[in-house]
Amino acid sequence: MDKINKIAILTGGGDCPGLNAVIRAATRTAVLKYGVEVAGFINGYKGLYLGHTVKLNMDKISGILPMGGTIIYTSNKTNLFQFPFVEEGETVYRDVSDVGVQNLKNAGIDALIVIGGDGTLTSARDFYRKGVKVVGVPKTIDNDLAYTDVSFGFDTAVSVATEAMDRLHTTAASHHRIMCLEVMGRYAGWIALEAGIAGGADAILIPEIPYDIEKVAEAVIRRRHAGKDFSIIVVAEGAKPISGEMVVSKLVEDSPDPIRLGGIATQVANELEAMVGLETRATILGHLQRGGTPTSNDRILSTRYGKAAVDLVMEGKFGHMVTLRGNRLSSAPLEDVIGNLKNVDPQGDMVETAKSIGISFGD
Amino acid sequence: MDKINKIAILTGGGDCPGLNAVIRAATRTAVLKYGVEVAGFINGYKGLYLGHTVKLNMDKISGILPMGGTIIYTSNKTNLFQFPFVEEGETVYRDVSDVGVQNLKNAGIDALIVIGGDGTLTSARDFYRKGVKVVGVPKTIDNDLAYTDVSFGFDTAVSVATEAMDRLHTTAASHHRIMCLEVMGRYAGWIALEAGIAGGADAILIPEIPYDIEKVAEAVIRRRHAGKDFSIIVVAEGAKPISGEMVVSKLVEDSPDPIRLGGIATQVANELEAMVGLETRATILGHLQRGGTPTSNDRILSTRYGKAAVDLVMEGKFGHMVTLRGNRLSSAPLEDVIGNLKNVDPQGDMVETAKSIGISFGD
Amino acid sequence: MDKINKIAILTGGGDCPGLNAVIRAATRTAVLKYGVEVAGFINGYKGLYLGHTVKLNMDKISGILPMGGTIIYTSNKTNLFQFPFVEEGETVYRDVSDVGVQNLKNAGIDALIVIGGDGTLTSARDFYRKGVKVVGVPKTIDNDLAYTDVSFGFDTAVSVATEAMDRLHTTAASHHRIMCLEVMGRYAGWIALEAGIAGGADAILIPEIPYDIEKVAEAVIRRRHAGKDFSIIVVAEGAKPISGEMVVSKLVEDSPDPIRLGGIATQVANELEAMVGLETRATILGHLQRGGTPTSNDRILSTRYGKAAVDLVMEGKFGHMVTLRGNRLSSAPLEDVIGNLKNVDPQGDMVETAKSIGISFGD
Amino acid sequence: MDKINKIAILTGGGDCPGLNAVIRAATRTAVLKYGVEVAGFINGYKGLYLGHTVKLNMDKISGILPMGGTIIYTSNKTNLFQFPFVEEGETVYRDVSDVGVQNLKNAGIDALIVIGGDGTLTSARDFYRKGVKVVGVPKTIDNDLAYTDVSFGFDTAVSVATEAMDRLHTTAASHHRIMCLEVMGRYAGWIALEAGIAGGADAILIPEIPYDIEKVAEAVIRRRHAGKDFSIIVVAEGAKPISGEMVVSKLVEDSPDPIRLGGIATQVANELEAMVGLETRATILGHLQRGGTPTSNDRILSTRYGKAAVDLVMEGKFGHMVTLRGNRLSSAPLEDVIGNLKNVDPQGDMVETAKSIGISFGD
Repeated sequence: MDKINKIAILTGGGDCPGLNAVIRAATRTAVLKYGVEVAGFINGYKGLYLGHTVKLNMDKISGILPMGGTIIYTSNKTNLFQFPFVEEGETVYRDVSDVGVQNLKNAGIDALIVIGGDGTLTSARDFYRKGVKVVGVPKTIDNDLAYTDVSFGFDTAVSVATEAMDRLHTTAASHHRIMCLEVMGRYAGWIALEAGIAGGADAILIPEIPYDIEKVAEAVIRRRHAGKDFSIIVVAEGAKPISGEMVVSKLVEDSPDPIRLGGIATQVANELEAMVGLETRATILGHLQRGGTPTSNDRILSTRYGKAAVDLVMEGKFGHMVTLRGNRLSSAPLEDVIGNLKNVDPQGDMVETAKSIGISFGD
Repeated sequence: MDKINKIAILTGGGDCPGLNAVIRAATRTAVLKYGVEVAGFINGYKGLYLGHTVKLNMDKISGILPMGGTIIYTSNKTNLFQFPFVEEGETVYRDVSDVGVQNLKNAGIDALIVIGGDGTLTSARDFYRKGVKVVGVPKTIDNDLAYTDVSFGFDTAVSVATEAMDRLHTTAASHHRIMCLEVMGRYAGWIALEAGIAGGADAILIPEIPYDIEKVAEAVIRRRHAGKDFSIIVVAEGAKPISGEMVVSKLVEDSPDPIRLGGIATQVANELEAMVGLETRATILGHLQRGGTPTSNDRILSTRYGKAAVDLVMEGKFGHMVTLRGNRLSSAPLEDVIGNLKNVDPQGDMVETAKSIGISFGD
Repeated sequence: MDKINKIAILTGGGDCPGLNAVIRAATRTAVLKYGVEVAGFINGYKGLYLGHTVKLNMDKISGILPMGGTIIYTSNKTNLFQFPFVEEGETVYRDVSDVGVQNLKNAGIDALIVIGGDGTLTSARDFYRKGVKVVGVPKTIDNDLAYTDVSFGFDTAVSVATEAMDRLHTTAASHHRIMCLEVMGRYAGWIALEAGIAGGADAILIPEIPYDIEKVAEAVIRRRHAGKDFSIIVVAEGAKPISGEMVVSKLVEDSPDPIRLGGIATQVANELEAMVGLETRATILGHLQRGGTPTSNDRILSTRYGKAAVDLVMEGKFGHMVTLRGNRLSSAPLEDVIGNLKNVDPQGDMVETAKSIGISFGD
Repeated sequence: MDKINKIAILTGGGDCPGLNAVIRAATRTAVLKYGVEVAGFINGYKGLYLGHTVKLNMDKISGILPMGGTIIYTSNKTNLFQFPFVEEGETVYRDVSDVGVQNLKNAGIDALIVIGGDGTLTSARDFYRKGVKVVGVPKTIDNDLAYTDVSFGFDTAVSVATEAMDRLHTTAASHHRIMCLEVMGRYAGWIALEAGIAGGADAILIPEIPYDIEKVAEAVIRRRHAGKDFSIIVVAEGAKPISGEMVVSKLVEDSPDPIRLGGIATQVANELEAMVGLETRATILGHLQRGGTPTSNDRILSTRYGKAAVDLVMEGKFGHMVTLRGNRLSSAPLEDVIGNLKNVDPQGDMVETAKSIGISFGD
């Protein structure tokens, strides 16, 4: 195995609390434990394409542990294997990954740590197939990447959503209202599920369990009969009704407008108001879940991932992604991880716990 | 002057952090300082109409200081002087205020403390005109009631909005984006102004200063030229462009759906994205500004107001509202307060401070 | 197996964020899932001795999820198997556990859920040996109970300590100081370890790794040579120097004064000041780690434990304690759990991670 | 008047949330509004003595608004008019202020903004007497500087103390304990008073109102008779008993050990435990009140002060300190401010409010 003298780090996709903590831990581990140089590509794969790097040393990463965001910036939907060019008024896609490979060589970079979600890691896998020494770090605020129990940023998102529920709770109670809170989770309902349990929701609607609005209304009415004329409902952005079409979520990363025009929480609110006869309000948390200082938990997880990624590099375990199973750090091949979604198990312990304490899933 | 043996408290209008602290301080002052009984009307003026009261004593108010909401509940838009009845399929409005006056007598209530905003206090004034011994406590999360420098709940709203800006900041910076945050303030831009200064906004758009979107774009572009390719813009829900029509705000209290369909922050975001060429995102804070535990500041202010309201009652200063001018508690006649909006002064010290540090108001 | 008609809950030992969430989840699960009645013993084992119970139903537990403390109160160091009586001026200890057993029968209680730490659970085991149908729930803010990966309250304590470090950090940097923060952990250093990683500590001193103050001083000096003339040091209250005597901790539960008189953080601070020549300050977090609203994480864990405890009762799995291994709920015999401390592994992944990023343990 | 081309800023004394916000606002105002250069002296007056400056421009101050501490560092007890030298084993004090004056000239600095408390501002006044163009900004976390209603950092300190009380509250209630919280305030009890009201204290002990421990005990016992067997007591570090000697506070800035050895809160706790028969605990907040991110309120106030200080400079109003009276920015001569303490008025509205709601001051 060739000696590793210089590692580069790249962050891709949406913002996620803990990115800086990963960068910090990876840099410190490389420098202090292995005496290896570190660089960062600016703006994710864009920086790889442009050969735009910045030196990462102890000074550069000083003070970034509690900070949200990423000091090396990120880009969305940048894929060097399908890079858009406008030619004669039309967009054509070309594979410019060779440029990235060449830039790695030019900069003397022996291995690349890619921090990202499914899309970003797919490119990482593709670069690995081309011979680049790649190690992945899972980044998904929705916590839906397979082969790892939990990813950083998720605890912060749940924490922000729970605090929002605490705030909505007092208003719901004072006004006898139904408050619907829409949280992230297009394909997996983890944030809604955990924030729903932590925030004392009366109903949780997630993509994995299609909901019957009548069942949700029944839960609210049952509460009313028990003397509680307010309810809190957490709705994952990807929740879908059991019958009829799914409301198309417009809260997508590449949209210029993240506010859904009559989205799922608003729809649920409107339907419940009509069915139950209580005032209803919808709130969409949106980007507040993605930014800001990470929880202590996320800072620890990020630090463990950053350190473990450098260890993988030094062990030569390329094409792998760091993982946490139970409380143990491990790794999994990117080939296995890609395209595998980790969904909420409708029969699993968490949903069962929620149901046991009386939370409705509308099923 | 007749002796006061029993005081009732009533909370009206939207939720506001500090309501419970007012109720607690008023009850403690009445019971401990004056040996007077206290009751609460349930659900605001609805409770007055229905004669629905609850005894407020030391036990009942125990532990409510840090809690958002109101333990005696509230109702919106209930006006006993224009109370809706449906007759032969049509809604007619009748003056049922005599029922309220009679209920006060029946319950042996000598004076009424009304905690509310302009609408709620207008009814309070009308009851005072009818001979009811009324004292008012100003409640406006927008901080737009005249004759008082600051009202409780406002500091909490600014604090929640500032924390939201801190979170959006890291995402804006990491992604080179413009983040637009819409905060409350239909007629007065206080929340936007203060949160904008506290959260490091690059532009603040408020109702008092109609904005020219080109000027806002210029400010963003100027920042770009100075090497900062992200911006944070705070938009009061009542902000309006200098030309053309105001976007009709749908985030109104009586709407079933508080999410604006293409509202002002979204419009500003869309226009800026087109003009500046940076990705843009909008977030609407909505009800998160209204609920939850009050800041220490708001707890103190609420406590001062609650105590002062009972003092006014015992001094026989009816028809007055408690106020805070500078750091001094005082009072003002409800007649003067009603209908008087306290707006941001475009030439005032706060706007001048904001402009001096480079914040654009789009003017 | 006899049918279970009524379950009682008892909380013992020191305060711990999440107790109310366990009580709430157990009550809801018992009532809603199994249709079983629930009671709470007031003041832990004292209440069992006095037959002092309170009915726990949906109303009683409403709104307690986000609250610290325990609505059924607790007592410290109460052991019915060795209960103190003063006779002729002397304290003698008697076994009064039969009174507790009789009180359970009198109140028609079929099974007892005991939420507590090692001491409280030892009594629970002893009652189980006497034939009482007992199920345990682990409660240790120090996270040092064996057979479970994590216990509720711990995440909150780490979170409070991390926030404290964030605050101390800015002062340390502005003043070129060494700030020593003493956190809980008499026998196990988990809080210090995790808060140290999350808060960016430069050194972490824990009971499991005796420290050499010279090594700690070297770490601080090394930082100085690298241009960083401030350091943050987290000290577990049970940390001990490699040589010489351990400083006797006076921060013990039964002491009237929790402020250590020249305790371990103060000693470390004084020694470092003398050795390094930087100003040093010590802060002792104390009870702030034990109270207040639990993190979202702790609320979820508490909810899972409360629900699982009732499941164990209904399955007849008595003498067991609920546990969480990896991400799976399970159980372990109280006999195995008692007296087994879960310590930080000096060779484990967490310590290795900390060392890899340059944190000194003084070894 | 000579033209101002370059302003320098200097921060002195203890840490205080908002210092960076003042520096940021002053720099932005100088650069953007007046086109004037800005420098910062490193480490307060030490930097002035050593001629150690750093350029402050838009880049340098970017991102510091939400950060505690001061990017230009500070020093304690440095007085160029009485500077210590060790000569033949003895410390002698010399006036080296001319060195400072010369360094200002050498660096081309036309005016100096000094941010500090009574000690720091006394030196500022002395430099002004020597002809230096000085403007002061009040910095006192205790809020005890005269001629200004409120100083930045104070709201953050009250907020941290209130949050601590919220945490202690649940433990006090669960354990039937008296919790004593010691907060800052050596000469003025503002933090104790405001946090006491905001946190629901049962007694508040401040320097301005000597306390009779028997009266405090009576208040606790009265609560017990009313069914509340726990109490929260806030003690300012400078609180003193009505008779007997004041406990000498060892929590002084220049002490190597900020932990009081049997200080005032501990003494109060011990005495109450003996008199009342409830378990008692003391917690000393210490440096946690001084660091970390400022509240939104403090960020606004700091911004206003920073901007106003530069305005004073440009108006040529030297020898003055910026002030806030009511809600209006103004200024006062340093000569008047120095040595004037702003104490809590025992007959004032705040104390009266606290007493009206049943809070004991032990008088």
